[in-house]
Amino acid sequence: MTRRRTGRRPGRHDTREEILAAARDRFADGGYDGASVRQIATRAGVDPALVYHYFGTKESLFRAAIGAPIDPAAVFPRIWAGDPAELGERIVRTFLGIWEDPTTGPAVRATVRSAVANDRSARLLREFFATQVVRRIVHELGDGTPEEGALRTSLVASQLFGVALARYILQLPPLADVPVETVVTAVAPTVQRYLTGDVAAPEPPPSAQSNG
Amino acid sequence: MTRRRTGRRPGRHDTREEILAAARDRFADGGYDGASVRQIATRAGVDPALVYHYFGTKESLFRAAIGAPIDPAAVFPRIWAGDPAELGERIVRTFLGIWEDPTTGPAVRATVRSAVANDRSARLLREFFATQVVRRIVHELGDGTPEEGALRTSLVASQLFGVALARYILQLPPLADVPVETVVTAVAPTVQRYLTGDVAAPEPPPSAQSNG
Repeated sequence: MTRRRTGRRPGRHDTREEILAAARDRFADGGYDGASVRQIATRAGVDPALVYHYFGTKESLFRAAIGAPIDPAAVFPRIWAGDPAELGERIVRTFLGIWEDPTTGPAVRATVRSAVANDRSARLLREFFATQVVRRIVHELGDGTPEEGALRTSLVASQLFGVALARYILQLPPLADVPVETVVTAVAPTVQRYLTGDVAAPEPPPSAQSNG
Repeated sequence: MTRRRTGRRPGRHDTREEILAAARDRFADGGYDGASVRQIATRAGVDPALVYHYFGTKESLFRAAIGAPIDPAAVFPRIWAGDPAELGERIVRTFLGIWEDPTTGPAVRATVRSAVANDRSARLLREFFATQVVRRIVHELGDGTPEEGALRTSLVASQLFGVALARYILQLPPLADVPVETVVTAVAPTVQRYLTGDVAAPEPPPSAQSNG
């Protein structure tokens, strides 16, 4: 395949960017489960082996496509290890750590800004949330229906994204100025309740109620 | 003052827009308290009487400048009337009502989108929050220091803006799809605790501790 464009020499960087652009298209249109590395490679005009060479796995390609600076698969086990009563605290502290960090902070800010500004980025973030975050948390929660676990997870997301929006993007005083630990102390009980406490659970679908 | 521009006839609409543009400049640069209707009128090249004619008060000019579709001064007394134990519930229901409404919903969405995308809009929203929302809630809460009341208010804002972001802008499932009352039931206790429960209060400044 001849790939020549005026004024630009093909090179590693261009190829990587073209794979990411193709991945954003496919993940936004077909969803994470519906998109294959082969389709993405075809759209980018490269061999699938090159996609694996650059990105390792479909999951890490997806993370790179939405600009996620952390790997939920690596972070979640550390959050789940430890006292279940302090789960909310560990989640809030880990989340704030990502936003406070000078490397990962600007990356998550850019991802959220882009998702707010543009519907395709929002669709990618939704898909990332549903497949990379909700599935893992539903699995970890164990009891309760998947629907209840998904509602709990999206309530947690509402509080965490809300803190990020208020503190780091809109910079509402005084939440933008207080120490991280003040935020952890205030917000951890909310996250703990959303995950393990009494929230309105949606009715399970009929299939989950039947006895076979 | 001669105001002629190529291809555009001066008229009511232009004047109103020019007053709003001047108001955004002044409120963003000088803050709400630092900006005067006279300065805004001068910047827009109109008589202050015309500003009052179009917008009534400095406060409603500010609301129009940031695109706020509701008047906190009108809404807050209704929220505060009633059982204090159901304050969180009334706040969440009122807030969601504004976002669900086909008239006010798109307006608040545009205001938040603009504040996320652009620093000057964020500064305006911060200023609106601090002067039109925090001051009123601190006043209503009554006990506690103003610093504590402001922290409580910004925690409430983090949860409410977070629900708005997750449900109406990013549209994270299933929070985007469940009935309003499911959200009210889940989120009201959070707002109630932030306003009246145990949250980490910042140390009052030294001046508030001294005995004169």
